[in-house]
Amino acid sequence: MPMNKYVIQLPKDQTPRQWHNILPQLPEPVGPYKNTTGQVPPLEALIGSVFPPWLIEQERSDQIWHPIPFPVLEAYALWRPTPLIRARRLELALNVRSRIYYKNESVSPSGCHKSNTAVAQAYYNHLAGIKRLTTENGAGQWGTALAIAARHFYLDIRVFMVKASLAQNPARQTIMNLLGADVLASPSLLTIAGRADLAKDPHSPGSLGLAISEAIGEAMSRSDTNYALGSVLNHVILHQTVIGQEVKKQLQIAGEKPDYLIACHGGGSNLGGLVVPFTPDVLNGQQIQFLAAEPATCPTLTKGKFGYDFGDMAKLTAMMPMYSLGADFAPPAIHADGLRYHGASPIISSLVKSKIVTPVAVEAEDAFHYAILMAQNEYVVPAPESSYALALTCQKALELEKARTPGVLVFVLSGHGLLDLSAYENNSGLEKNSPAKKD
Amino acid sequence: MPMNKYVIQLPKDQTPRQWHNILPQLPEPVGPYKNTTGQVPPLEALIGSVFPPWLIEQERSDQIWHPIPFPVLEAYALWRPTPLIRARRLELALNVRSRIYYKNESVSPSGCHKSNTAVAQAYYNHLAGIKRLTTENGAGQWGTALAIAARHFYLDIRVFMVKASLAQNPARQTIMNLLGADVLASPSLLTIAGRADLAKDPHSPGSLGLAISEAIGEAMSRSDTNYALGSVLNHVILHQTVIGQEVKKQLQIAGEKPDYLIACHGGGSNLGGLVVPFTPDVLNGQQIQFLAAEPATCPTLTKGKFGYDFGDMAKLTAMMPMYSLGADFAPPAIHADGLRYHGASPIISSLVKSKIVTPVAVEAEDAFHYAILMAQNEYVVPAPESSYALALTCQKALELEKARTPGVLVFVLSGHGLLDLSAYENNSGLEKNSPAKKD
Repeated sequence: MPMNKYVIQLPKDQTPRQWHNILPQLPEPVGPYKNTTGQVPPLEALIGSVFPPWLIEQERSDQIWHPIPFPVLEAYALWRPTPLIRARRLELALNVRSRIYYKNESVSPSGCHKSNTAVAQAYYNHLAGIKRLTTENGAGQWGTALAIAARHFYLDIRVFMVKASLAQNPARQTIMNLLGADVLASPSLLTIAGRADLAKDPHSPGSLGLAISEAIGEAMSRSDTNYALGSVLNHVILHQTVIGQEVKKQLQIAGEKPDYLIACHGGGSNLGGLVVPFTPDVLNGQQIQFLAAEPATCPTLTKGKFGYDFGDMAKLTAMMPMYSLGADFAPPAIHADGLRYHGASPIISSLVKSKIVTPVAVEAEDAFHYAILMAQNEYVVPAPESSYALALTCQKALELEKARTPGVLVFVLSGHGLLDLSAYENNSGLEKNSPAKKD
Repeated sequence: MPMNKYVIQLPKDQTPRQWHNILPQLPEPVGPYKNTTGQVPPLEALIGSVFPPWLIEQERSDQIWHPIPFPVLEAYALWRPTPLIRARRLELALNVRSRIYYKNESVSPSGCHKSNTAVAQAYYNHLAGIKRLTTENGAGQWGTALAIAARHFYLDIRVFMVKASLAQNPARQTIMNLLGADVLASPSLLTIAGRADLAKDPHSPGSLGLAISEAIGEAMSRSDTNYALGSVLNHVILHQTVIGQEVKKQLQIAGEKPDYLIACHGGGSNLGGLVVPFTPDVLNGQQIQFLAAEPATCPTLTKGKFGYDFGDMAKLTAMMPMYSLGADFAPPAIHADGLRYHGASPIISSLVKSKIVTPVAVEAEDAFHYAILMAQNEYVVPAPESSYALALTCQKALELEKARTPGVLVFVLSGHGLLDLSAYENNSGLEKNSPAKKD
């Protein structure tokens, strides 16, 4: 039968109906969030002014399965289940016997996995009677995803986008505007944190930590406005578990047992979404390695310290137990803006501490090299962030080949890079790798 | 069951296995191609030096069903069948009772319908032992699609891209380079036609007609190189009929009978792909209106003359029986570069002559307006070209509402606009339409 057996597409009605909360199953429990003075007030007092009650419940829930509300399932059905694809041509190009699969989260309306939590968060805010959302944005994926989700549930939205990122990639502002979002360069004059930063340096390029401070600041000052975060928090990881649940079913259909599950790590949401549903299996003795691909230039998990730290520069968030390079760490500019974050999700931090997740630092050059190989063999331009997961997967496959122990590797293609082409354009790797240049 | 019934997704094994050739069924037969002196030599003598024999056979075939070769089916399975989606939110935004569906061809690796013929053409060239392809490119969709198809069948490719388009949209060059294609600005110094144009005007912005001349010129001069055209020709329409065949099955699943089938018209390929499989039904008396949405600034079908004309500026192609504004017509710059073509597919021309297809001119402003409405309600940024089909669909739905005769309208979303955001950025409509600006 002429069918491409390398594309594993679940039928629409196989989209997961529940999210998987790993909190009660973690061998190393996630500690409570604290305030600036190190006390542990009720979570409502800490974050209740900017988050709706259902998300706060999810943040500390000890219930494993959370039914996905119908309106969220309906939104998911616009693009889920996403395909799991065997990267057969990539395997051939690498000349490895390992089988490489990628979970293609780039097929969502926003072009990335962020939509999984964006629609859930927009829904719960809508349910709470909130009219407006604020958020921050580095690379632009999260802002795009939340802009779409806000439209879907008839909310207005303002995005504080890091000024340097905005200048580098104007297409991101265009698409968010197209979707009806209001986009402001951060630092802005609208918030206390923004004004303070501009007073220090009128030409400040901004940073993700500062943009978070601005978005939270505005949400705190308006009762009709809440704040939404695209990564790090427990409820975000929870919503992303649709990824891993689908992968599990798809691997069963393919008749495969995974040896490696790999995702890039910025705040931890696509990694968490992939590995959480497999974590109980590993705790039960199944042999699967979870790898976190983080940029060598922002080595939160490989070189950061575990402890309590803030999620933003102005210290408006709660203090969370996590690996961190310090809330005022300013990572150097790399093409993968979405991975430039000083902290890590508390859940991922716990999994790293229990040695269930192994972090690996990946060089930007390798991320580029394998991204081009992927484009030329699988016809998908990976988002710069996803290229780190891809690169680690390819390196691992080559290593297994050398050791004559081929295996099954699965990575998350968290997004496409069609709105990040300027990053590719400015990189010399493109010229070097283009086969057409031989001509 | 929590499923989105507005997304109609055929299972993988329902991808069509045959292409539908309409030539033997046309009430107004397509006349033979002629040479410059008006004679009718064998097709091999006219175009045999740049096309492989199988495509020449398809160009004049009187066989209705053409089995799709297995390697092409395998490639199709990377993204086909494509979803048919009921634009429920768009209907609500328009406040119409008509049911609007769109066939989402933007999910292909190239982001548009051009991949349907690109993989077929690359395959037949590979079969003929050809090592290299040349082609021209206006908007960039066709070049991207052929670059991917060439990679898939291990062919090299050179794309002559209209210099003005290249300057306007550098992302298109980046992605084609990423995919391994060699991209040259046209006019170039490589070909006779290019040098002649540059001699006249060293700052020539180029045109699609000239880029075609350059690509054919180079293919004629090298025995290992063939040329590929992304629209107009009979074999291109043939390959695109997978679109309409799938739509037919999907409408049956939805329990719908279509009243209007609508596509944009540049050279005719996505329109032909949609309507050909429904044409025998119309000839048998079924009431379906086929509408061609063409730009008011390049009104080939509404204002052009029917007769024999060349497909390119340097008159290197055969003379074809078609509607044309004249081979040297230079359409004004609009955002939808892919619709700026002086001619029309002979098949579409025949259907217009028989009054089976009705052409309608659409204003650029309306295309923009409805594109933004679509982005904000269906979360898809339409390619500028597809926006013409969308605009005509919305206008028709509003007209039906006024007449109190709601119907079923289906249009082809031929591609997404993620690589054309600069077109949106430069348009004032965005500011006007953005709801966020109210804030």
